[in-house]
Amino acid sequence: MEHLEGRQSVLAALHARERRFNVILLRHGMHQEPVQEILDLAEQLGVAVRHVDDRELDSLAHGTTHGGVLAIVSAKPRLNGDDLLDRVRQLTDPALLLLIEGVDDARNLGFTLRSAEAFGAHAVLIKKHLWDFDAVEVARPASGAYERLPLVQIDDVDVLKKLQSLGLRLYGCIAGAKRTMYEVDLTQPCILAIGGEKRGLSGAVRSICDRLITIPTRGQPTSLSLSHAAAVVLAEAMRQRRAASPSPETRGNTI
Amino acid sequence: MEHLEGRQSVLAALHARERRFNVILLRHGMHQEPVQEILDLAEQLGVAVRHVDDRELDSLAHGTTHGGVLAIVSAKPRLNGDDLLDRVRQLTDPALLLLIEGVDDARNLGFTLRSAEAFGAHAVLIKKHLWDFDAVEVARPASGAYERLPLVQIDDVDVLKKLQSLGLRLYGCIAGAKRTMYEVDLTQPCILAIGGEKRGLSGAVRSICDRLITIPTRGQPTSLSLSHAAAVVLAEAMRQRRAASPSPETRGNTI
Repeated sequence: MEHLEGRQSVLAALHARERRFNVILLRHGMHQEPVQEILDLAEQLGVAVRHVDDRELDSLAHGTTHGGVLAIVSAKPRLNGDDLLDRVRQLTDPALLLLIEGVDDARNLGFTLRSAEAFGAHAVLIKKHLWDFDAVEVARPASGAYERLPLVQIDDVDVLKKLQSLGLRLYGCIAGAKRTMYEVDLTQPCILAIGGEKRGLSGAVRSICDRLITIPTRGQPTSLSLSHAAAVVLAEAMRQRRAASPSPETRGNTI
Repeated sequence: MEHLEGRQSVLAALHARERRFNVILLRHGMHQEPVQEILDLAEQLGVAVRHVDDRELDSLAHGTTHGGVLAIVSAKPRLNGDDLLDRVRQLTDPALLLLIEGVDDARNLGFTLRSAEAFGAHAVLIKKHLWDFDAVEVARPASGAYERLPLVQIDDVDVLKKLQSLGLRLYGCIAGAKRTMYEVDLTQPCILAIGGEKRGLSGAVRSICDRLITIPTRGQPTSLSLSHAAAVVLAEAMRQRRAASPSPETRGNTI
């Protein structure tokens, strides 16, 4: 069993319906209004809700930002490469996937998931041997995106090659690449690959990229963190896609 | 006195020459090559270097990522509003300033400084009463940008009005604003204002904005963190400025 901490994570997981809920714990005496949607969904889905005191919550919680809301749930089902290929085949809009290599901590991964969802990515891919994170630590900064966005752990680059054979182009973001992200067509189905700050993209990924691209900045290479580089290149994909076919769904909203 | 931790912070501070160095501490027996530039600059500037053991370093360091390099230095001189106005008057390219309100922790502030520098901001403004950070915690994720980029603590919105009277436009990033960041001219001198995740921009700032703009995303408003929203809007300013006058300085480089 895993924990979910905070209203947004619990609500996102109830909506996503991918986890089995054991119980939802709410701080005794908390205002009902902010958690009304949780209570309604829990009733609808037959999930038990218990009101407990601060001490019990704090003894279960990893962090201090749960705000009186915690759930005990099954682990999120994992997608493998084949599941991902199935999902990509079923997409009706051009695929946008993010591959991250060498992410260094759970918090940066969580922020990356959040930005990826905000800019319309369909899934985030991470190498299996790099997965060594506490799910709660990832989920908190992801603000619900951890529940909603598929996070696929891949064994090797084979799944990337299969995605390429489905027509996706693999763009590797590399410091000093000749071409900038503004000079490639990101409206077509693609995978955006970002390396870690220390080592960049692996040779295995680099060698199969259709194109290497760079995010123009002033000053030294590698001056962005991985999660900020990911946000900026995904935002550029969204900008190009909006310009190509402005739809109500992608218009407006958010700081 | 303050500490600087890690090779990059120490090197950036030596280059910036804004702090007085008391001493630089290096781990006894460490390879000389990665710190050669530090040793050269220290000699040139007459700064003492001491080789110490791990225990001494660890007892002084706040974090664990110093990598054997630490310096004891004077605090960074603070810029006030008048200093900022002077600097803006002296700029030869169109001013690009970032105002952040409601940043919630030192690490996010550090990452924001790093992105701001990467995308060519001339200074970052933060309200004085929101400044309650450990400088070491800010400097570490900023990867040298904390030493190089002016961080101005402002008392109130008066300095913003003065900047406006110098010709800078104040753009407030707000969830749900009608106009997107793609629909305004960010090549002209401007201040980009980003609010915190919880409360957004203050009424005082909002009321004097020349224009409210939004970062288009899919899904709910406020789906980006402050530091990621800042990176994306600054990257858009840089994209527009490069398109308007492509120069070697802003071409190429970095993930």
